[in-house]
Parts: sequence; structure tokens; C-alpha cells
Amino acid sequence: MSTSDPIGELVSLLARLPGVGERTATRLAFHVLGADPLYAKALGKSLAEIHVRVKKCAICGNYGAEKTCAICLDPKRDETILCVVARVPDLVAIERSGSYRGRYHVLHGLLAPLDGVGPEDLPLDALEARCAGVKEVVVATPLSVEGEATALYVAEVLKAKKIEVSRIASGVPHGGELEFTDQVTLGRAFEGRKRL
Amino acid sequence: MSTSDPIGELVSLLARLPGVGERTATRLAFHVLGADPLYAKALGKSLAEIHVRVKKCAICGNYGAEKTCAICLDPKRDETILCVVARVPDLVAIERSGSYRGRYHVLHGLLAPLDGVGPEDLPLDALEARCAGVKEVVVATPLSVEGEATALYVAEVLKAKKIEVSRIASGVPHGGELEFTDQVTLGRAFEGRKRL
Repeated sequence: MSTSDPIGELVSLLARLPGVGERTATRLAFHVLGADPLYAKALGKSLAEIHVRVKKCAICGNYGAEKTCAICLDPKRDETILCVVARVPDLVAIERSGSYRGRYHVLHGLLAPLDGVGPEDLPLDALEARCAGVKEVVVATPLSVEGEATALYVAEVLKAKKIEVSRIASGVPHGGELEFTDQVTLGRAFEGRKRL
Repeated sequence: MSTSDPIGELVSLLARLPGVGERTATRLAFHVLGADPLYAKALGKSLAEIHVRVKKCAICGNYGAEKTCAICLDPKRDETILCVVARVPDLVAIERSGSYRGRYHVLHGLLAPLDGVGPEDLPLDALEARCAGVKEVVVATPLSVEGEATALYVAEVLKAKKIEVSRIASGVPHGGELEFTDQVTLGRAFEGRKRL
């Protein structure tokens, strides 16, 4: 792309970002033009280089600056428990919660037969290979249709290898009002009730 | 900047965009990482080069790919009328409306004494110099406090040189309900009323 309309080109590239429409893209482009040229250069360089500078961990698929990610390198993390997530932001959210001290396995996707994503497109062989010596695999894929289907599939594959598999709990979220909670969630909350 | 945290670096650069907070910046960064690397490269290049590729028109201050903008080069535009705007997006909006066929003068700012922006910071000498042969200058700065103050100042300077100056109309906008229109706007709508 090297048209004679650099602003239009920048606007159409920005408009491909999620949640950014033509109007917002135009506003952003004019903001960048009105701001310090060094800022545009720094942001541009950071974007252009991001795929080179960020590597997928060869072990778990997490993003990092090195071949192996900080979590896989951390000797204090429990190696006997693995948490399967769909995407790196999910891993980041779990880390932020401080509720888990094991290792991860990032699928970078979910089973989606209608979009042509089958088991062979997810790193499930690598997951199986990592399970020697692992006591439990916690499947933390989203509670969506695709996340649930993927969780069931992963559980089936691993259970056939005699590996213990668990699923994160589903129920009414913290601070949630029962009045405004959907039927499926309420059903799960009752199903998963615990003795007090 | 070349930290060992390229994602964090990209997030903090994205978070400096208007309307983009830490959360949105994180979402955008992970989106870019998950998308085609060619897209990140193209967007990065476009941003890094935007200040070099986009030039301010030497005559009117409009943005363009050349030293003189398309509007100033267009022989079909009326040279005897000039429209003063604060920013290029305002010019773009006026062009989109199709209501004006003269030339422009972009101030790239407004008088803002509290922020240290005085008349000497705006291209007013250039505006005066362009006014030989001009029959009318339409001041289309925003209807805000700073826009109004700048309009009054521009009018004073040009009228001293015997140049005809006008201001765009202020009133109830198209589709506007009187019930929900503020007092100042209603006051202006009555003041500027026209005989039917």
C-alpha cells in the first residue's frame, strides 16, 4: 500500500481494529497527526515489530520475549497441575486473580466445527505430551458453547489416558443479583451447590 | 524504548490514544498479536510514516500528500472567499456537507490564553497576507468559548484592514427539539431569526 492518500490509508487500517469504526479511526488518525511525531513513530515501530519481538512459548504457548515464557521458567510454579486456556488474555486474567500457582497450556483457539476449526488445529498432542507426571488438568476455557465443547473434548482425550481433568466452576458471579441472573447460570449454581 | 516487555510497551503506547484506556489498549494489543502479522506491520508502518507522508499545505495549512493541498490547487474553487477553521477535521466536515466552494485557512488551534496560546501562535499573518482580493472571510471556528473568542479576534484584525468578515450561523440544529435545547442556543436562534 502506498497510495497518495496516507490519512485515508491510516484510517482504513485503524478501522480494522476491534471496536473501532470509521469515525473513531478518523479521530485517532487526526489525533496522531496533531500529536508529537515521536509518538507516532514509537507506536508505529512497536506495532510493526510486535510479532517479531513477542514469541509464543515453545512449552505452553504463552506470549513472552523469549523462547520459553516466564511462567514455564519459574521453578516455584507447581509442575503437577496444568491449566488449559483458550487465549493469553484469559491466562493474564487468571494470573491477576492470584488463584492459581500451576503451569498453563494455551490453545490459541477453541473447537469451532462451523468455522472449520477441528481438534487437529489445536495443540492437543502437545498437551497430552506434557501430561506425564501431571496430577490434574484444570480446563479454564470460556463458559460459552465453544468453550464448553472444547472442555468436553479435552476431558475425553485426557481421561482416556487416565489423566485427572477438572473444569472451573460455573455459577452466579461475585456481586451478582439472582433476579438478573440467566436461567442456565442459576441452573448451574444449584447443580454445583456446596454443603455449608 | 526497548524493554523486555514488548506487549506492555505496546499497551502503554496504545493507551495514550484518546478514548483508549488500559483495558481497551490491552484488548487491542492482544487482537493485533492474534491477527495476521502483515496487518500489524502495515499499521505500524503507516503510523511511523504518517508525519513524513502527510504535509501541511504551505498556503492554507490543510493536510495533504503534497506541498500544496488539493483544494488550493483546484482552479474551480472560488478564490475570493476564505473559510477559517480551527482544525482539519472541521474542514473535512464542511467539505462533506457540500455547502462551501471557496478556499480554507486552517489555524491548527484556537486562542487559549490560559494554556498560553496567543495570537502569535496562530497563522494570522499568513491569513492577512492571503486576503488581498478576497471578498469575504467566513469564520467557522467552533461555537465554544475559545472558538468564539478566536472568531472575534480574527474579525477585529481583518476588519481593521477593511476585509469583510462573517461568522457561521448559530441556532437550533437540524432535527433539534426546542424542549431539549439549551438557553444560549435558543437565545441565538431568536436573535438570528429570519423573515419568512
